[in-house]
Amino acid sequence: MTRHEFAQRQRQTADLFARAHIVITPREREAIEIADFGVGAFEATGLGILVYVNTDRVCAKELAMLPGQTCPEHRHPTVAGKPGKEETFRCRWGTVYLYVPGSPAAKPLGKPPAGREKTYTVWHEIVLRPGDQYTLAPDTWHWFQGGPEGAVVSEFSTRSTDEADVFTDAAIRRAPEVT
Amino acid sequence: MTRHEFAQRQRQTADLFARAHIVITPREREAIEIADFGVGAFEATGLGILVYVNTDRVCAKELAMLPGQTCPEHRHPTVAGKPGKEETFRCRWGTVYLYVPGSPAAKPLGKPPAGREKTYTVWHEIVLRPGDQYTLAPDTWHWFQGGPEGAVVSEFSTRSTDEADVFTDAAIRRAPEVT
Repeated sequence: MTRHEFAQRQRQTADLFARAHIVITPREREAIEIADFGVGAFEATGLGILVYVNTDRVCAKELAMLPGQTCPEHRHPTVAGKPGKEETFRCRWGTVYLYVPGSPAAKPLGKPPAGREKTYTVWHEIVLRPGDQYTLAPDTWHWFQGGPEGAVVSEFSTRSTDEADVFTDAAIRRAPEVT
Repeated sequence: MTRHEFAQRQRQTADLFARAHIVITPREREAIEIADFGVGAFEATGLGILVYVNTDRVCAKELAMLPGQTCPEHRHPTVAGKPGKEETFRCRWGTVYLYVPGSPAAKPLGKPPAGREKTYTVWHEIVLRPGDQYTLAPDTWHWFQGGPEGAVVSEFSTRSTDEADVFTDAAIRRAPEVT
C-alpha cells in the first residue's frame, strides 16, 4: 500500500475507535497498524490494530473493522512446546461475525472476500454485539468479519507472535508492506 | 456490607462504566464485584470490579473508583515458583493516581484513607488520564486512588489469584463479605 493509503486507513481506524468512545493518545494514533495480509485489497481483507501491550505473558489490543471487512482464517499453533495464543474477543461497538469449528451456520451472516471462498473452512457462527465476548482456545481455526456498520473489538490474550500464525490461504502475508 | 449497600455500590460502579461509555450486558451488571477489603469504609477503601475473563493464562477487568477511593497497597508475589501477576492499568475515564516504588512525589495528589496512613509506603506517583497506561512488573508494591471525578481503568494481566495478594495493611481482607 502507498503511504497515502496507509495514512487514510489509520484515519479510518481512529474514526472507528472514536465511535466506540475509546480514547487513545496522539502517539498511539500514529502507532496504529494497518494489516492487509498481503492480499492488497484492504477493504475486503484487512484490519486496523492498536497494540496496547504485548509482553512475554500478556497482550491487549483494539481491533477495528470496516463494514464487511474480514480478518482471514488462521490459528495460533503450539511453538517449541509452548501453547499457542489464547484470545478473548470483546465487541465494543458495531457487530462482529466470528467463525470457529463446530456445526456450520445454515445461513451465515458473514461472507468471505470474493474469490477467496475456498480458504474459509470453519462456519460455526458467533455474533458479537457490544458487551458480548468469546474466548478461543489456542490453535483453534477462526476468522471474523465486521457487520453492516463495521466493528471495534478488544482483544485480551497471551503474547502475540504474528509470525507464528498459520493461515488457510497460502497467499496471506501477515507483515504489512508500505511502499 | 448489607445487601442494600451492595446493590447501591453495584449501581455506582455501573454508572461509572456508563460514563466511560463501556457497554456491559445485564448479566455482567449483576456480576459486578464490590471489594471493601474488609475495612468497612467502602467510599475510602474500595473498588468496583467487573471481571471479563480470568483463565489460567490471561485476565481482563474493568475497575471503577469513586472520587478519592483507594485500592490499598499490595503486591502479587511469586507462588510455588510461578511469577506473580503482571498488570497493565489503562485509564478510560477520569483520573487515577498510581503509586509504585521509586523517587517519592514531593506533593502527592493522592492521600491515603484517614487513619491508615502508615500502611502506605510507596510514593512514586504516576498520574493516568484517559488513554494513559502503565505496566507493573510482578511483585511490585502499588496502590491507586480515583481523582476528583473518580476513574474507570481497564486492567490487562496474567491470571488473577486474589487470595495470593499481600497487603501492607494487616487489617485487609480481600474477599468481600455481604451480610
